Amino acid sequence: MAVSYKLIAKDKKARAGVISTPHGEIETPVFMPVGTQSTVKAMTYGQVEATGAEITLANNYHLFLRPGPDLIAKAGGLHKWTNFHMPFLTDSGGFQIFSQMRINKCKISDEGAEFIDTITGQKHFMSPEVSIDSQNKLGADIIMAFDHCPQGNSSYEETKEAMQRTHAWADRCVSAHKRAADQALFLIVQGGIYEDLRKESVDYICSKDVPGFAIGGVSVGESREDIDRIVEYTTPLLPENKPRYLMGIGTKEDIVKAIAAGIDMFDCVMPTRIARHGSFFDKDGNRLQIKNQRYTEDFSPLVEGCECYACTNHSKAYIRHLWKVNETTAATLLSIHNLTYLINLAKQIRGNIIDGTFNPDKYLNS
Amino acid sequence: MAVSYKLIAKDKKARAGVISTPHGEIETPVFMPVGTQSTVKAMTYGQVEATGAEITLANNYHLFLRPGPDLIAKAGGLHKWTNFHMPFLTDSGGFQIFSQMRINKCKISDEGAEFIDTITGQKHFMSPEVSIDSQNKLGADIIMAFDHCPQGNSSYEETKEAMQRTHAWADRCVSAHKRAADQALFLIVQGGIYEDLRKESVDYICSKDVPGFAIGGVSVGESREDIDRIVEYTTPLLPENKPRYLMGIGTKEDIVKAIAAGIDMFDCVMPTRIARHGSFFDKDGNRLQIKNQRYTEDFSPLVEGCECYACTNHSKAYIRHLWKVNETTAATLLSIHNLTYLINLAKQIRGNIIDGTFNPDKYLNS
Repeated sequence: MAVSYKLIAKDKKARAGVISTPHGEIETPVFMPVGTQSTVKAMTYGQVEATGAEITLANNYHLFLRPGPDLIAKAGGLHKWTNFHMPFLTDSGGFQIFSQMRINKCKISDEGAEFIDTITGQKHFMSPEVSIDSQNKLGADIIMAFDHCPQGNSSYEETKEAMQRTHAWADRCVSAHKRAADQALFLIVQGGIYEDLRKESVDYICSKDVPGFAIGGVSVGESREDIDRIVEYTTPLLPENKPRYLMGIGTKEDIVKAIAAGIDMFDCVMPTRIARHGSFFDKDGNRLQIKNQRYTEDFSPLVEGCECYACTNHSKAYIRHLWKVNETTAATLLSIHNLTYLINLAKQIRGNIIDGTFNPDKYLNS
Repeated sequence: MAVSYKLIAKDKKARAGVISTPHGEIETPVFMPVGTQSTVKAMTYGQVEATGAEITLANNYHLFLRPGPDLIAKAGGLHKWTNFHMPFLTDSGGFQIFSQMRINKCKISDEGAEFIDTITGQKHFMSPEVSIDSQNKLGADIIMAFDHCPQGNSSYEETKEAMQRTHAWADRCVSAHKRAADQALFLIVQGGIYEDLRKESVDYICSKDVPGFAIGGVSVGESREDIDRIVEYTTPLLPENKPRYLMGIGTKEDIVKAIAAGIDMFDCVMPTRIARHGSFFDKDGNRLQIKNQRYTEDFSPLVEGCECYACTNHSKAYIRHLWKVNETTAATLLSIHNLTYLINLAKQIRGNIIDGTFNPDKYLNS
């Protein structure tokens, strides 16, 4: 298999491990920065590497439309295309496509989904086969099944239908996958906020012989309580010997709880998105606004002791000035800091797990 | 004096030298990147340093308005404010203020100039005393006189009046300057396209005992022929033993001709501005557009053999993709490349001058 998982330590349900990929090892739990269009926004990959990232995402939905998987294949795949030689993971595009259901732009059938390129207005079709073919061309180390992710407020019946479609599509993804030797296909558990559906989905999905599993359909509009309940319920049902990826979560609270439940991998656009809106994490992961007047004469770093490029070089007052005068360098510096914060949070918790001292409450109450 | 110049070699009128400043030596001729608001747009200072830059500019006009010289003084001056410890040069603000004359927003008298902050609409006043006080607070290694720079199409009488005002203001700048021990005040020659005025201005300005001189009022609307004629005429009139700075020029053609005339220093926002509009320099300094269709599948660097971060890491096809999908990383990469190109151009010509092989036509005809 293209990817294997080695469990290093457990602390209650939390796990520390190592994922081996064709482009190197990843120490888990790990936060994965998102580079949607094959760049992390406002950063170079050199800057991404300096944050301590061990794997980054790219998105098949965006790259399928622009520049197209054939061009990236011609370049030699994502690693050569970006010249970033760490592990890549591509999302299948399912999440972005089904997000269009809210605006009635996506037509779904058992065959696949017709969707609109919101930039050109052009119609496109994606199915398990189309998605996997595209992801095979992109060449990420880990690729994701094309699943049906319904909104978090969907009814039991809607959620069940989406889950069943996800199961049928999972089989088609496995059949369509042409590069199992060097790309690991992860299948995705659905089932919304309904525990019996989550159980049914785990039973089906985890019976497949693939190198890893993900929990999808979390943080898509349901309540905080539902998120916590479903992650806590579902994660321990996943096999011990394979990586467990909770898709699209990224607040400190989400991350701490997910790790406590036994999750190994997570990603979120949030840290870089809020950076582009002027927010940065303090030492406890609270969001602060750099444009706040109280930083006008604050010559201390964003976080005292933080070893990121922004904090070792610049003050809040300086970054605030850049922000106020619309310099994009402010977004770059805040993105570097926010990514570094979440990556280090996961690394620190990993240390706690290995030492047997991981106390989620310590993180949640700070 | 805060700054001294050592002539290393001459090749006809072209000079190779070294300027010593409180923050290190600068090998001349030198291209100086512009960081108007105390950042080079779309770059970190780490990226600026990696281009091979030996000195950067910041602008007193912008920093006077935002965040204000008192705040930067409180931070410890520009070097501590930016944490960039190479030499800084600040422009006085005169050029930006008098540019407002075109839109009737600037009222000028012998005392100084009343101008409008185009962002807030607020009125401000700047004079030689106000500009120098502000630049003393900013703390750059080299600061510039507050001069009256008229448009390039001004009449003889208008140009003469501006020149005379510039001379009177030069004396007031010298008197107002409080940090001659660690900041070098450069005075500026005006006189427009009129050779007799340029001669008169050089005679007046260069009789002052300051560490360096600049030629202002070039490339402000006059013809290509006038630019060349005035630079060729004026430069050799400047003293041999002090640095000579031609303000605000930055095309390859401008630079080669200026160096041939005996100029040591030049700056321009152009390379980074055109980068933010998708343009990059080819190996001969011609401007190409990254969005051009012909780069869609061009996996070669912007310039073969260029050692900048963009060229050693990325292809035209990749940067074109980033540009087409509005990723600011494209502007960052093109800015890095364009600055590196002009900085290296000056370094290469410096080598030619030392070897006695500088042939301007070789550069101008390629």
